[in-house]
Amino acid sequence: MTPSPHITRPDRHLALPERERRNGHRGGILWLTGLSASGKSTLAAGLERRLFDARWQVLMLDGDDVRHGLCADLGFSPGDRAENIRRVGEAALLMAKGGTLVVAAFISPYRADRDRIRAQAGGMFHEIHLAADLAVCERRDPKGLYARARAGGIAEFTGISAPYEPPLAPELVVETGHSPVADCLEALVRYAGTAFAIDGGA
Amino acid sequence: MTPSPHITRPDRHLALPERERRNGHRGGILWLTGLSASGKSTLAAGLERRLFDARWQVLMLDGDDVRHGLCADLGFSPGDRAENIRRVGEAALLMAKGGTLVVAAFISPYRADRDRIRAQAGGMFHEIHLAADLAVCERRDPKGLYARARAGGIAEFTGISAPYEPPLAPELVVETGHSPVADCLEALVRYAGTAFAIDGGA
Repeated sequence: MTPSPHITRPDRHLALPERERRNGHRGGILWLTGLSASGKSTLAAGLERRLFDARWQVLMLDGDDVRHGLCADLGFSPGDRAENIRRVGEAALLMAKGGTLVVAAFISPYRADRDRIRAQAGGMFHEIHLAADLAVCERRDPKGLYARARAGGIAEFTGISAPYEPPLAPELVVETGHSPVADCLEALVRYAGTAFAIDGGA
Repeated sequence: MTPSPHITRPDRHLALPERERRNGHRGGILWLTGLSASGKSTLAAGLERRLFDARWQVLMLDGDDVRHGLCADLGFSPGDRAENIRRVGEAALLMAKGGTLVVAAFISPYRADRDRIRAQAGGMFHEIHLAADLAVCERRDPKGLYARARAGGIAEFTGISAPYEPPLAPELVVETGHSPVADCLEALVRYAGTAFAIDGGA
């Protein structure tokens, strides 16, 4: 539904550019998408640490952060996944407008769901594809999830019993199936610096 | 529903205390509740400015921020208001855990909805009642909403055709019906300093 007509936008006292100048970097969303075990949370946590140490305002978000809270009412059907990603995108956008660089690590398998965030966030949304092959991810399987999914123990598991739609035109592709973690992390740090730093913030 | 059992909590690399030490203040939620025209958004914006100028990481949120985005699918029935406040509380909690002091300005008329955020956020949630009387708010009526509500033009308008349940034990009461704006703002700045500053951050 459309918002009630009695909602008006008051003047906000603190504009984003003022926050960005203080922080030394722009606000935005680095959206890491990829299969389970493609390295999303590991790289997001590593990137958060590196940027925090460079004194950025940076916050990692992953499924774990929201599945127990903001999205605790949602499951894993396509409709619920869509709403999950929609809410995460909107929450991340609120943070980004507050000057934070959000590093979002979500499988987010459906292209339409990711594209909807891009439509809402515009230039603040940067899509990073962690492009590890299913075979590699399944071989890693750190939590045994692929094995359980193959055995029928997890319904609608991305890559096994539910689709993954890779980005068609991501801002960056990181080959997390073949490159060492350290190299992947360097690529992300470099990208963040290029895309978000203001006068050499990172 | 309960979250899927295949969600586990990985070690997060960046703990809140490290962020708080850097910021000079604790993360948390200053939740301003009160009738329409009780001064919520004005005071929240003023507080955001004051704390930003003291170099705090602070972000104001109000209905305007979420009704077009995170909560765009919700209306104003008691159930939708509950879900609106639930989502805002969860999003604010994510920010607070990232070290931000969130200044949330929401009518949030139902005690149970506010208490649920407190239950989720624990000591990070500080409830501030902007305690202007209905008569005062209705006299102010800066947007003509009370007049429209009295004329039947707005359904479920808090104070007129929907209830407001004041907090029973808020952390702070600000008498915004009688005190000048500047005094109310001072009270909030003082409270934020007392409750959230680390070694004299504010």
